[in-house]
Amino acid sequence: MRRVRYSVAMSLDGYIAGPNGEYDWIPMDPDIDFGALFKQFDTRLMGRKSWDEAQRVVAENPGAVMEMPTYVFSRTLRQADCPGAILSNDAVKTVAELKALQGKDIWLWGGGELFQSLLEARLVDAVELAIVPVLLGKGIPMLPALGKRLTLELEQHRLYRKTGTVLVRYTL
Amino acid sequence: MRRVRYSVAMSLDGYIAGPNGEYDWIPMDPDIDFGALFKQFDTRLMGRKSWDEAQRVVAENPGAVMEMPTYVFSRTLRQADCPGAILSNDAVKTVAELKALQGKDIWLWGGGELFQSLLEARLVDAVELAIVPVLLGKGIPMLPALGKRLTLELEQHRLYRKTGTVLVRYTL
Repeated sequence: MRRVRYSVAMSLDGYIAGPNGEYDWIPMDPDIDFGALFKQFDTRLMGRKSWDEAQRVVAENPGAVMEMPTYVFSRTLRQADCPGAILSNDAVKTVAELKALQGKDIWLWGGGELFQSLLEARLVDAVELAIVPVLLGKGIPMLPALGKRLTLELEQHRLYRKTGTVLVRYTL
Repeated sequence: MRRVRYSVAMSLDGYIAGPNGEYDWIPMDPDIDFGALFKQFDTRLMGRKSWDEAQRVVAENPGAVMEMPTYVFSRTLRQADCPGAILSNDAVKTVAELKALQGKDIWLWGGGELFQSLLEARLVDAVELAIVPVLLGKGIPMLPALGKRLTLELEQHRLYRKTGTVLVRYTL
């Protein structure tokens, strides 16, 4: 079955973005093959704040974000607010349905709150962190909270020496 | 000059202990040579909460904590509260003095608040994380806050396959 993978860059102190969604602390390591990474997925999942941030990035850098069918989860947005994306107000139901379809893996793009909801519904299969050697001191946590501890298993591991980024993939 | 190294175990979501100081999520990987690690240090630094936790561990497991000259930083404790340790109410001054002395490296044992104070005073030389594949969901953060971003350099890196623990050492 296709997997839902929470694949994000994370600072050493556990943030996936700065307090205002900043991602300028993430180095573009020349040895990371982003094209190959994108090819592993055919669907992207975003919470409302991640969607807002993605829209801002696209507005500022036309063509920066590779196109991929995208689901946005929000109880306040309307479909008209999400041009080019599919809006859902029920992440658990929609993601369970998506997992049952044929396809490539599903990219849980962020943020931490959506990760928490899907984790608690046991819909996340892997956590992939590109651990970046920076201390942000504040920002958006990779996981804001969780009702009970979860132990994961290491599946993959690679060091990118040029930027000191450590890539780790864990399964649940 | 001897270095101050913040050497701690950290959960994937950035905590160095559970909400009540729990450390039972840290696996004892048989391939990690704790004896060799301890031998690299001759001085240990603790904030007040870490000291309380260390005292509890010693009370429950006599002999569990290897002896090492220990400095406790607190503005509320009295020296009589810290049997076998040296109390200071000025971490920056005391640690600067310790670094100027001859000796082995200095173990910044925890917690995050003491790390923050010493980091802001530019007294920390290395951050060493044993990243443990567990999501705690809540607890004591490795770094509660920081005024400005800090970029680090990867110095050392090792995977412990039996427990999936990734050890990384960064310099400041």
